[in-house]
Amino acid sequence: MQEIEFAVPIPSRVSPGLDRARERHLRWVTDAGLVGGGEARRRYEFSQVADIAAHGFPDATGEDLDLCCDLLGWMFLFDDQFDAGDERKADALAVCGQLTDVLRGGPPAPGAPPIVTAFARCWVRMGTGMSPAWLRRTVHDWVDYLAGWPTKIADRAHGVVLDPAAHLRARRRTIGCRPVLALAERVGRFEVPPPVWHASHLEAMRLAACDAVIAMNEIHSYEKDRAGGYANLVSALVHHDGLAESQAVQRVRETVRDSVESFLRLRSGLPDFGRAVGAEPAVLARYGGALAAYIRGYHDWGRGALRYTTRGHPGDLGLENLLMPRAD
Amino acid sequence: MQEIEFAVPIPSRVSPGLDRARERHLRWVTDAGLVGGGEARRRYEFSQVADIAAHGFPDATGEDLDLCCDLLGWMFLFDDQFDAGDERKADALAVCGQLTDVLRGGPPAPGAPPIVTAFARCWVRMGTGMSPAWLRRTVHDWVDYLAGWPTKIADRAHGVVLDPAAHLRARRRTIGCRPVLALAERVGRFEVPPPVWHASHLEAMRLAACDAVIAMNEIHSYEKDRAGGYANLVSALVHHDGLAESQAVQRVRETVRDSVESFLRLRSGLPDFGRAVGAEPAVLARYGGALAAYIRGYHDWGRGALRYTTRGHPGDLGLENLLMPRAD
Repeated sequence: MQEIEFAVPIPSRVSPGLDRARERHLRWVTDAGLVGGGEARRRYEFSQVADIAAHGFPDATGEDLDLCCDLLGWMFLFDDQFDAGDERKADALAVCGQLTDVLRGGPPAPGAPPIVTAFARCWVRMGTGMSPAWLRRTVHDWVDYLAGWPTKIADRAHGVVLDPAAHLRARRRTIGCRPVLALAERVGRFEVPPPVWHASHLEAMRLAACDAVIAMNEIHSYEKDRAGGYANLVSALVHHDGLAESQAVQRVRETVRDSVESFLRLRSGLPDFGRAVGAEPAVLARYGGALAAYIRGYHDWGRGALRYTTRGHPGDLGLENLLMPRAD
Repeated sequence: MQEIEFAVPIPSRVSPGLDRARERHLRWVTDAGLVGGGEARRRYEFSQVADIAAHGFPDATGEDLDLCCDLLGWMFLFDDQFDAGDERKADALAVCGQLTDVLRGGPPAPGAPPIVTAFARCWVRMGTGMSPAWLRRTVHDWVDYLAGWPTKIADRAHGVVLDPAAHLRARRRTIGCRPVLALAERVGRFEVPPPVWHASHLEAMRLAACDAVIAMNEIHSYEKDRAGGYANLVSALVHHDGLAESQAVQRVRETVRDSVESFLRLRSGLPDFGRAVGAEPAVLARYGGALAAYIRGYHDWGRGALRYTTRGHPGDLGLENLLMPRAD
């Protein structure tokens, strides 16, 4: 359902480094052991997942854009390991634990799976130059993202159609927006200092950005989710609220509109907020701009991304098992 | 408003070890440097905060009950450091960071503040005998609790009356229910294994338990919060939804009722849930029972707790600064 239009009154921009970064990122996923040859490579190139970096971080170029491509690309590859069949479940759970340990300060074990070592290297790059306070809160955002995946495994085993609120709660973790918004500070070379970053005003902005992206994603991936028998907000609304499919789609579109409106209203309140809490106005403006750019960037990427097509789609990125310890 | 009645159809129970544990806990807070002599001790004894352990964990006795008293007592003492005036703000923020580092595996620095060393010792006791998976997820729950306090500081600086949803979001962190529910597994000597613990069914039970406790607490502490000029859900409803105070109180009572009903409905679904996910029925039953006991225990303790009286109240527990490095 990528043809569905969303109201996102934020300017459309893209990093001038896209083409160069795409080529370089393909070498990186290959060198990191995340994408092998042949069919896996064909699927990865087809999916264009890492292009989202250039749309979501339009001011990033050079090594900063490369970091965004690698982290976002990693997230899609990690995601698809969970759709690759039940026999990978135990390994996927174990990997969530290993990644949590990496974030809490342990280097990956020798011979750790490629999905772990690749993340560990990205995490070192992501933390470079950032303060201890930013590192602490960003570890928490990453671990919260990781905590969403066992939920997905358990809910599938349960075989239940989650109600819309529960579905949204689970998606707020696995969508990965919070660590991505922390990445926006890193590549923008600024930080919202504590305790200002923790204020409910900014938390509400993050939540609105997150919900806008989730709701767009649910529409983009609906046909693919339905074909695969996976959870989706549209299906949850049909099942629990007794809506027709078209009504449910409309409801999700309204969630996009409401979330974006809420985000923009909170963003326009940043100068007043900053005066009250004594925060540097320029830093808050950059933060608001970075969040807005990610919402718009997701929108622009998602409309065209071949990841969500169902016609002529070569299959997901989970062809290769990236969860097993390496022999070397 | 402790006279207000709540519908909590869960049996009332209390640990037979209460009196012994209370005496021993008073020695512990003194030895740990958390409560000095004179007025600070008088206030602590008056508050009866650690008694909540015997109500919330009615099956715990001996060392297990002691651990519950110490951790719950610690939480109240920590909480009140944030109400002790602006001059402690920076130290309180720094302590949140130090506690996060302790949870992620670093021992406290030599000469660390008493609130940090006392927590570190409790955390070692809390983790004893628990699996790596339980430790990982419980660290996350503790860190999430700690992340709520900078929000409180920032929101006070902002000077805004949060809307009810934002107020509830912030309280879901600082109420501390999630680490307390993990403590219930520890002292019950059982664990809900992964990924079952992460299932949305159990997450919804935790959330309902948490919201029931929050809503009761908002009523219990309303007069005290109003007197101190602090945020409270009743005030949020009056301010944002245009309710009279009595209507707002009624709305919060309904939140208690709805949350408890939702919890009990989900609890009665545990056998079906367990069959679907292949979980041991006895473990799920114990978990449901432990959560129910904590809801009821909070209810019973909160009605009588002198912490929330406004008449003849000697003052909060923040008399002594527990955030400064120790000279010794």
